[in-house]
Amino acid sequence: MPKIAPLSGFPELLPEQRVVEREVIASLSRTFELHGFANIETRVVEPIDRLAKGGEIDKEIYVLQRLAADADAKAELGMHFDLTVPFARYVLENAGHLEFPFRRFQVQPAWRGERPQEGRYRQFTQADIDIVGRDTLGFHHDVEVVRVMVEALGALPLPPLSFQVNNRKLIQGFYRGLGIPDVTTAIKVIDKLDKLPEDTVAQQLVEQAGASAEQAALCLRLATIRVADTSFVEQVRALGVEDELLETGLTELAAVIDGCASATSERVTVEANLRIARGLDYYTGTVLEVFMAGYERLKSVGGGGRYDALASDGKTTYPGVGVSFGVSRTLIPLIADGVLSGSRKVPSAVLVAVTDDDARDASTAVATALRARGVACEVSADAAKFGKQIRAAERRGIPFVWFSQADGTHQVKDIRSGEQVDADPATWTPPEDDLRPTVISTAREIEENQ
Amino acid sequence: MPKIAPLSGFPELLPEQRVVEREVIASLSRTFELHGFANIETRVVEPIDRLAKGGEIDKEIYVLQRLAADADAKAELGMHFDLTVPFARYVLENAGHLEFPFRRFQVQPAWRGERPQEGRYRQFTQADIDIVGRDTLGFHHDVEVVRVMVEALGALPLPPLSFQVNNRKLIQGFYRGLGIPDVTTAIKVIDKLDKLPEDTVAQQLVEQAGASAEQAALCLRLATIRVADTSFVEQVRALGVEDELLETGLTELAAVIDGCASATSERVTVEANLRIARGLDYYTGTVLEVFMAGYERLKSVGGGGRYDALASDGKTTYPGVGVSFGVSRTLIPLIADGVLSGSRKVPSAVLVAVTDDDARDASTAVATALRARGVACEVSADAAKFGKQIRAAERRGIPFVWFSQADGTHQVKDIRSGEQVDADPATWTPPEDDLRPTVISTAREIEENQ
Repeated sequence: MPKIAPLSGFPELLPEQRVVEREVIASLSRTFELHGFANIETRVVEPIDRLAKGGEIDKEIYVLQRLAADADAKAELGMHFDLTVPFARYVLENAGHLEFPFRRFQVQPAWRGERPQEGRYRQFTQADIDIVGRDTLGFHHDVEVVRVMVEALGALPLPPLSFQVNNRKLIQGFYRGLGIPDVTTAIKVIDKLDKLPEDTVAQQLVEQAGASAEQAALCLRLATIRVADTSFVEQVRALGVEDELLETGLTELAAVIDGCASATSERVTVEANLRIARGLDYYTGTVLEVFMAGYERLKSVGGGGRYDALASDGKTTYPGVGVSFGVSRTLIPLIADGVLSGSRKVPSAVLVAVTDDDARDASTAVATALRARGVACEVSADAAKFGKQIRAAERRGIPFVWFSQADGTHQVKDIRSGEQVDADPATWTPPEDDLRPTVISTAREIEENQ
Repeated sequence: MPKIAPLSGFPELLPEQRVVEREVIASLSRTFELHGFANIETRVVEPIDRLAKGGEIDKEIYVLQRLAADADAKAELGMHFDLTVPFARYVLENAGHLEFPFRRFQVQPAWRGERPQEGRYRQFTQADIDIVGRDTLGFHHDVEVVRVMVEALGALPLPPLSFQVNNRKLIQGFYRGLGIPDVTTAIKVIDKLDKLPEDTVAQQLVEQAGASAEQAALCLRLATIRVADTSFVEQVRALGVEDELLETGLTELAAVIDGCASATSERVTVEANLRIARGLDYYTGTVLEVFMAGYERLKSVGGGGRYDALASDGKTTYPGVGVSFGVSRTLIPLIADGVLSGSRKVPSAVLVAVTDDDARDASTAVATALRARGVACEVSADAAKFGKQIRAAERRGIPFVWFSQADGTHQVKDIRSGEQVDADPATWTPPEDDLRPTVISTAREIEENQ
């Protein structure tokens, strides 16, 4: 038997920490559903050849095999490493039963056998929203899906978030209009701007993408444009590049920025940042990444964009646009730092004390009456001295202790204030704020101190 | 690229089917939380030597390995095959941070590489509740945990369920008092009564457990006792066997039956069934299985019991009592049979029509006003003819379509009745029953036709 110890990269939460994760997922789900997104879950496994596409991710795929399998049996199944690959397969498999445009949200774990570090885990939960069309998908869905995620994350008690949005057509059109020989390579090089100094990036644009020094300088100027309104349009035009695709990109990006404006707040901002490219090949229009103030070391905590071919079966193509939020990547560091915590270890708002073991049925009857009106409670495990029962409630974070007297009267004590009042199990209800465990966040304070 | 096809044993649900699973899990969670059970999730992997104990289950364990691992690398991790093994490990690992008795519920998938059949899947979701003590755990928690599951399952729209309860002490005490030489083997033999004829079981009791023919006959008579009240106590006493452990078992079983009585209904019954043994070695007192009317072919859809040593680190022992409900085992056959279905494919209660593409912003403003009051809605994907937009709502099961006129007036149409009325986006709300997708169940009709 192995020693009991945590497994690196497989974080688990204590009950009071799990309160945070559950409330965050419930809040996200509420917002997604208000906007008509249906929930699905996919199986956790896919055929390996659907997962392994020769990319960087391949070596991190976990494959699955029965313990009893023959030694030379070839493994056929792997664990999904994101929610996009299984979703694309689900759309193809069930296309005949789905209504398009199909809005779905999905909150599930994914697995990657990578080196664990803060914000990077081998098992991690993501929350994805996507809108998928059959053959076509109106551009206005780009605005919709970004705005929904802005609203969803804006409802969470997190440190300030910044949505950094760009558009692949804008970059591609600019580079094409500028006359860069290898546009695809140029995008990949520009994407390294957060890791390499500007000089090096300019040099690589010349050496790898065939740009002139002047062209490289303009690419870098484009990449420095970052504003929270649509003034980027004039800034780009001032660079003097003309191209039809560039114009489309400018119009689309301006529509996303404008469309999200009324959903922003001091907790969530949306900016046009013309440096954002996202390395992944499948993005074709809107691209975005989400960053969290004070946690820039996590890199992006979310991201997404438009892909004109999320899935295709050869006959029909399914374009999509979506945004993914890293639930584990965001919450586990915040919980570890004490920024987010649960208000108590148990759902119970009330501990019903037990006077002596013969009176357990009476205490259970009180609990049943409270539960009938939605008040979560538990009956004391044993008929210890009242002081000990109160301390048991305290250790669990239960705010109220209920005492029943032999004469049939009842009293309830708020163990935080010490106040004890007469109460009737058929009518007494705790204050709304005490009904359920809540998330305690110091994020607001962090923000105010900055 | 493999052909897109379902994987046997890994069922997935369409959005309207997933409504059923989500609502069932939400309902179960509500009941568990009303009783003070805290939610946890464990990682899906455990060290293989914690999973593989030399039992029947071993060959069904899925092991996990990185695709890039060396060919001769030894796999160290396996997927959990139930929620009990990871929970026991979690208790040991976090004992210093938990408050005992620790009530927890856990709803997660588990994996077994077994041959798929109706009710048996390779990935399946379970909902478990357990109460765990440190060193000791009062017997009254047996009553509590069974009653909580009776209440939780009684709140679901399922065909009638039957809790069949017994007590290991009762059987062991009876066999011991009777003088059966090999009590452990006798229990295993009696456990085969649902597969083998009585004669064969009697013969095996003689041959394998060393019983006399008369003792075997009494064992069979004990196993035929099945009543919905505590009259089994007198029936057992009438068999004339005396034993201290038997008396304890009778008292405990009577307490469970009595304690659950007020939670039973025509949808959930609780019976003492002295044939229930559960083959698993670790049960030490209360044992139970749950069966569903019309679905006896699934065998039990839930089960559990008391184990005096759920976990132990050599110094401290953690006794527990718990019940597990097979969410997938129960729901997937009921969904396939059309007994349970979701009322619609999307959360939206309203489709906001779009008059022409320039009026999309006006429609979005209506949707925003409705969402502010908790009404889920979506804006039509395109400004097609109204008839087409109404049919799009119909296909999704959305009950209401909203029309805005150029003069600033609004009307909402119930597309089921055809009724169309003036409405104000700032105040109109659909009937409570239409707010969210619901579960439609024909279980009640099935019951009435029986």
